[in-house]
Amino acid sequence: MWRKVGEIMRYKITIQYDGTAYHGWQRQPAGVKTVQAELEAALEIIVGKFTLIEGSGRTDEGVHALGQVAHFDSDKQLACEKYVSAMNFYLPKDIRVVDCKQVADNFHARKSTKRKTYKYRIYDDSVGCPLYNNRVQFYLGKERLDEVAMNEGIAYLVGRHDFSAFMSAGSSAKTFTRTIFDASVSRDGKIIEISITGDGFLYNMVRIIVGILIKIGSGQPVEAMREILLSQKRKAEWAMAYPQGLYLYSVEYGES
Amino acid sequence: MWRKVGEIMRYKITIQYDGTAYHGWQRQPAGVKTVQAELEAALEIIVGKFTLIEGSGRTDEGVHALGQVAHFDSDKQLACEKYVSAMNFYLPKDIRVVDCKQVADNFHARKSTKRKTYKYRIYDDSVGCPLYNNRVQFYLGKERLDEVAMNEGIAYLVGRHDFSAFMSAGSSAKTFTRTIFDASVSRDGKIIEISITGDGFLYNMVRIIVGILIKIGSGQPVEAMREILLSQKRKAEWAMAYPQGLYLYSVEYGES
Repeated sequence: MWRKVGEIMRYKITIQYDGTAYHGWQRQPAGVKTVQAELEAALEIIVGKFTLIEGSGRTDEGVHALGQVAHFDSDKQLACEKYVSAMNFYLPKDIRVVDCKQVADNFHARKSTKRKTYKYRIYDDSVGCPLYNNRVQFYLGKERLDEVAMNEGIAYLVGRHDFSAFMSAGSSAKTFTRTIFDASVSRDGKIIEISITGDGFLYNMVRIIVGILIKIGSGQPVEAMREILLSQKRKAEWAMAYPQGLYLYSVEYGES
Repeated sequence: MWRKVGEIMRYKITIQYDGTAYHGWQRQPAGVKTVQAELEAALEIIVGKFTLIEGSGRTDEGVHALGQVAHFDSDKQLACEKYVSAMNFYLPKDIRVVDCKQVADNFHARKSTKRKTYKYRIYDDSVGCPLYNNRVQFYLGKERLDEVAMNEGIAYLVGRHDFSAFMSAGSSAKTFTRTIFDASVSRDGKIIEISITGDGFLYNMVRIIVGILIKIGSGQPVEAMREILLSQKRKAEWAMAYPQGLYLYSVEYGES
């Protein structure tokens, strides 16, 4: 896939980050630390000029990524593994580029997305554990969460639905229909992990779903999830879950 | 176990901490952040005077605890669960008291110890993962570690031995014989976990053992562990493992 000198090539990178210290993915005015700005600053040192890094989507302040994907264009003839090592050299330690591939010119990290998976971790113990600070939502209720009920509740979301009830105000989305391929809740000791895969997600959708799951896990009827879905209206008195437990786990693109 | 007002009672507390921000367990001159000093400062607010908190042992800078144990004496008639909630109210979020019990006057967090368990976590991937920063030792070799060989190597340590070869200079220990009850190495994906239980440990003993295990996992013969043990001399050119991967996991006291 090597081409002649000076030709522009497109690169797909996979990124992991601890979102604790960042005001989310999206570049902001100077002085505000964001993941995109850190990546672009590292890339600028390597290629010698500002180069846009386009992500698969934004993540909010405090949200983490184990498999964020982005693309950029460059005419710098550098092997993919050199981009990985050079970017990691200049990046802060809480952001790592873990993969780089050359891709076709029509690949687009956001527009070409086929499936995205988010995971959400709840630490289900009223005392908490300092080693999970900023990595989970601590559930501090006196009774333990019922992960079986939560797993039944999330099952209502699988399929193609209007998810208007699971979106915060301020979204720029024009359509509200999305397809959820897989969704499940499981427990490993004190950690409850929610996994959800879909073709796309509305603004705050996963955190709103998890907020409802916590209600179901602490005594609300499982059917509340179905009723909220059908209502197509956000139940604002049920708080959404904190950003610290949310992980963008993977982004898939068919064959790319 | 309630007694008359003014009588001094002994309390055993169990503590978890993220050691990243602290210069270890042991109180230092003013201005140096340590776990013991933070606990004593919180307790002083509650009981109204300085009260020594005696730990089961020190942990070094950057080392974590999931089950450190300490004791203190107080004539303040406060229920155990109130000590837990009040101390956690005043403590920083990276230190948590997770349990409190009244114990007999002859209980001593250090001297009464029967068994201690340490765990050590290695992240076995040359890229690393930012969500494990300060929580593991990253192993950056090109080949993956051989956890089966490591598990064979650590088995030589089980039993009653002179562990002089596994001690840093600067120790105040007067005897070097310790008993290791259990020791094992296992893999869960990219995480290699070393678990070791003994009646006591010399200064830096676990980190020195892990440093040798990393050598064995990356191609040195399994028998190196046995040779070093029998030599009773520290093999100083084999670096000990970083503190960030070490967890004081539990301290046991027979029936207490």
